[in-house]
Amino acid sequence: MKSNSALKELSIASHRKLRGKIGIVSKAPLRSQNDLKIYYTPGVGAVAAYLATHKKEARDLTMKGNAVAVISDGSRVLGLGNIGPEAALPVMEGKAMIFKEFAGIDAFPIVLDTQDVGEIVKTIRYISPAFGAINLEDIAAPRCFEIEKQLQKILPLFVMHDDQHATAIAVLAGLINAFKVVKKNLKTSKIVVIGAGAAGSATAKLLVAYGARNVVVVDEKGILSAKRKGLNLYQKELAAMTNKKNVQGTLQGALLGADAMVGLSAPNIVKSGDVKRMAVKSIVFALANPVPEIMPQDAKVGGAFIVATGRSDFENQVNNALVFPGVFRGALDHRVKKITWDMKIRAAKVLASLVKKPTPRAIVPSVFDPRVVKALASVIQ
Amino acid sequence: MKSNSALKELSIASHRKLRGKIGIVSKAPLRSQNDLKIYYTPGVGAVAAYLATHKKEARDLTMKGNAVAVISDGSRVLGLGNIGPEAALPVMEGKAMIFKEFAGIDAFPIVLDTQDVGEIVKTIRYISPAFGAINLEDIAAPRCFEIEKQLQKILPLFVMHDDQHATAIAVLAGLINAFKVVKKNLKTSKIVVIGAGAAGSATAKLLVAYGARNVVVVDEKGILSAKRKGLNLYQKELAAMTNKKNVQGTLQGALLGADAMVGLSAPNIVKSGDVKRMAVKSIVFALANPVPEIMPQDAKVGGAFIVATGRSDFENQVNNALVFPGVFRGALDHRVKKITWDMKIRAAKVLASLVKKPTPRAIVPSVFDPRVVKALASVIQ
Repeated sequence: MKSNSALKELSIASHRKLRGKIGIVSKAPLRSQNDLKIYYTPGVGAVAAYLATHKKEARDLTMKGNAVAVISDGSRVLGLGNIGPEAALPVMEGKAMIFKEFAGIDAFPIVLDTQDVGEIVKTIRYISPAFGAINLEDIAAPRCFEIEKQLQKILPLFVMHDDQHATAIAVLAGLINAFKVVKKNLKTSKIVVIGAGAAGSATAKLLVAYGARNVVVVDEKGILSAKRKGLNLYQKELAAMTNKKNVQGTLQGALLGADAMVGLSAPNIVKSGDVKRMAVKSIVFALANPVPEIMPQDAKVGGAFIVATGRSDFENQVNNALVFPGVFRGALDHRVKKITWDMKIRAAKVLASLVKKPTPRAIVPSVFDPRVVKALASVIQ
Repeated sequence: MKSNSALKELSIASHRKLRGKIGIVSKAPLRSQNDLKIYYTPGVGAVAAYLATHKKEARDLTMKGNAVAVISDGSRVLGLGNIGPEAALPVMEGKAMIFKEFAGIDAFPIVLDTQDVGEIVKTIRYISPAFGAINLEDIAAPRCFEIEKQLQKILPLFVMHDDQHATAIAVLAGLINAFKVVKKNLKTSKIVVIGAGAAGSATAKLLVAYGARNVVVVDEKGILSAKRKGLNLYQKELAAMTNKKNVQGTLQGALLGADAMVGLSAPNIVKSGDVKRMAVKSIVFALANPVPEIMPQDAKVGGAFIVATGRSDFENQVNNALVFPGVFRGALDHRVKKITWDMKIRAAKVLASLVKKPTPRAIVPSVFDPRVVKALASVIQ
């Protein structure tokens, strides 16, 4: 593994050299007047006139049918926080590369110079006609919940906030196999989710929907409990769904005797000593990006039996990149409007099932496994 | 030449087969964990963090430096009128193909589900951070003037309404050479511009800026004159710049003795008999798309000496496709914020100069001439 600062330098230099990781490609040659006649004027006039009266066929005659807008307001980029639209762009381009290379989807990065819910919703509505689906990315909670909900109501398109649903699916798939490895029952084990933002809350909810009965969510103020004051609407809902015993306390308190922890929060907030408080054969998912809650070697020092991160340079990469290409492939191909709980559970199960014999070092398939996209697309319908 | 209906069918079938004329391409391979480390997480985190404090370098480290948003509200698509965003999409994709194939520019089609000036301006502002330039397309007058003006004021980007400026440059280039062929003086000849929309008014103004002293604009209500009632702000300005003698009357009246006519209006509104009223060695540019004001054979029956259309299937294609790739190449490369009158005149002259010996059948270079983009880009600075 390259040193951290060497990788940073290499990455910045590689981006500077490419000047953009994605580009536009023409799907037909433009080499003669005849090509122009067909694809530009006058031929395109017939297509435009036809679509004026057959609007629904835009998915068949234009880019729309295979196009996803990857949209961020830059308010919660990776674990880096609110760094704005320009800084979010290379991340969105990275998503677009992954969409293309793994699922053949044309993803168009759009970064927004507004962080107002109403303005974001209107902007996305206005630009929606060219796209077959909308992928919301790296938008801070609780704004992201409201934006997703409103767009799902007004747009005749698949709209999904990746950081919520794709992350939750990847985590559930990873936990299904991790619990198989440690021979414990996921549904009755204690699972601590660190982070109550987009990813943390969606993951906790999906675990509960799957049947997990002992999920505890912790945020920067401690354990999320219905008794805690000052909760917003979304936090109240989450507290009611998890932590049935209304336990209160700190992260360290929550980790006592926990079978698994799922970090979807901030860098370096978990120490080896915290991991030591967990149950035997503990499962540690430290998924903050690019710097996890605890580095794998430190988690192991604390006694973790299985460790996963969101990164590409450690084993067990539990990252939404494993999920979003296949989910959007399925949504576009089957013209799905909204992802349901049932679809998410089926997606997690099918993803887990691709690892025939899970081991501590291999609980999820590789993002390069060509079966992943197909399997996920098949259950999104 | 294929029959009209055969071409229409071929074009629709070709679009249906391609399912979109453009797509996204990844500029680097994603084949290994190492690739993901550099372009996705964790490496991209370093790029995002760097851009958070070096926003201006987004042009060097992301797609922004080579990216143009091609934006339409579908209110004035070709000569087809207000047919909406979905129907405008194949035209925008055609523009994107041309941008890529001729100028290596990554153009992203965006079609808007609003035709409100304020909402369009806001939407474009919000989505602007990913783009190095904004190309407005097929937006009806007078809305297009207001949108362009407001965006030029608020955005730190090159913003240009193609139908105005690129068309005007192509027409002026064509007329410079056409007048050379007929051995008349453009500046003192009578030039009738049909259409007072985006293209018509920008063309008339550029002709005046170039030095043409006898330009008359005609719209569907007849000759545009300062004496005519009910003119909007933009029409008043145009009337004051042209038609110094305040002539009133019909299109037929305007064409009497005209040396050139430039149609930027609607299909089939000029007859052979109308062309007969023009001066000897008349120049007829019938540029409405896809169906011109008069078909070339009918213009010739009326005695036209030089005929041009906007189409790819006749000689003398005077189309903004000849201009926008080079203009945007220059604007991106030289970080130009606004196109000036001087740049437009230099662009028209340099475009005309590429035809060493103009003839009645060859007044403009081919869009396939590789010198075109370079020559235009060199004067946009």
